[in-house]
Amino acid sequence: MKKIITISREFGSGGRTIGKHLAEELGIPCYDSEIIEKVAVESGFAEEYVKDKGEYTHPSLLMSLLTNRSIYTGPTNEDKIWLIQCKVIKELAEKGPCVIVGRCADYILRERDDVMKVFVYADLDARAKRIVDIYGEMEDAPLKRLREKDKRRAAYYHHYTDMDWGTCRNYDVCLNSSYIGIDECVKILKDIAQNA
Amino acid sequence: MKKIITISREFGSGGRTIGKHLAEELGIPCYDSEIIEKVAVESGFAEEYVKDKGEYTHPSLLMSLLTNRSIYTGPTNEDKIWLIQCKVIKELAEKGPCVIVGRCADYILRERDDVMKVFVYADLDARAKRIVDIYGEMEDAPLKRLREKDKRRAAYYHHYTDMDWGTCRNYDVCLNSSYIGIDECVKILKDIAQNA
Repeated sequence: MKKIITISREFGSGGRTIGKHLAEELGIPCYDSEIIEKVAVESGFAEEYVKDKGEYTHPSLLMSLLTNRSIYTGPTNEDKIWLIQCKVIKELAEKGPCVIVGRCADYILRERDDVMKVFVYADLDARAKRIVDIYGEMEDAPLKRLREKDKRRAAYYHHYTDMDWGTCRNYDVCLNSSYIGIDECVKILKDIAQNA
Repeated sequence: MKKIITISREFGSGGRTIGKHLAEELGIPCYDSEIIEKVAVESGFAEEYVKDKGEYTHPSLLMSLLTNRSIYTGPTNEDKIWLIQCKVIKELAEKGPCVIVGRCADYILRERDDVMKVFVYADLDARAKRIVDIYGEMEDAPLKRLREKDKRRAAYYHHYTDMDWGTCRNYDVCLNSSYIGIDECVKILKDIAQNA
C-alpha cells in the first residue's frame, strides 16, 4: 500500500469528507485541521489567519507579484507560514501512512516515492448547493464566492509550486465527486491505494 | 448506466486498450478505427490522412493561426474532416451505448446528458516504453516524439473546442494508467459507469 495519500480539492467538492472517510476505511490518520493547529503553534499566528493564508492568495500577495519584485522587503507572513507548513507536512508524512487534505501537500512531498496524489473537484452548481447545505454558508451569491475562492487557491498554488492547480498530470487520479458520488469516490480511492 | 463513454487519452497511455476492454466488460461497442473509416468514406480522404488530420495540428494549420485570419480562404481539409467527424460521432452516439476513443468526442457530445467523460494519461517514461514495446515504434528519441505528439494534439483540441486538453474539470474522471495499472483502470471505469 502507498503510505501517504494527498487530497487536493476544490472548495465545496466534498474532498475533505472523502479524505476523512478514506482514512477511516484504511485505518490511518487524516490530517487537516491538525496541520493548521501545528503551523499556528510553531509560527505564533492565529489559527484562522493560518487557515486562510496557507492556501489562498490575498490582495497584498497579488500586489507584490504585480509590483517591482526587485525591491525585496524580506519574507512575508505568507512565506513564513509556507515554510512552517512544509516542515509540518514533511514531519507528519515521516510518522507513517496517512491522508493529508489540501495545503499543497502533493507538491511539498514531491520527492517521496510513496505518495498517491488525488484531486477532487465537482460541478459548480453541486458545490454551491453543498456549501449552503453542509457548511451553512450564506445563500447569497455562492457561485461568485466559489469562483473567487478557486481563483485565490489556484493563484496560491501557482505562486508556491510554479505548477497549475487542477491539471491532471500533477495527480495520479482526479475525480468529479458530483458525478461519481462521495461514497463511490472513497471506494475507488481505497481500491487504488491498496492495489497500485 | 450512462450510455456513452468517451475516452480522451495521451498517446502511449493505454487509453485505447482501456476503452476496448471496458467496452467488452460492459458488452457495448468500442468505436475507434470505425470512426476513421466512416470519416474517410464520407469525406473521400484516405484513412491515414483522416487519422492524422482528425486529431493533430500540423504546420499549415498552425501557420493559418499565426497569419492574418481576416483573409478567409474557405474551409481547410481539416475543417471538412472536423465537420464530418462531428456528424459521424453524433450518429454513433445515437445508435446506443458505446465507448468512443479520442477525436474530441467529449466536446462533440457535450450537449448530451448521458455521457461519461474520461481522460487517461501516464508518466512520460511509461508511455515511451509502451510505444516502443507494444506499438513497435522506433527506439530513437521516443520522449521527443511523445512531447511533439502531445503538443500537436493539445493544439488541435484547443483549436476546435476552445478548451484546454488535460484539464480535470473537462472530464468526470482522470486516471494515470502507469500509476493505477491498465486492468485496475478498466475495473474503476466499469464501476463508475454502472453506478454513477
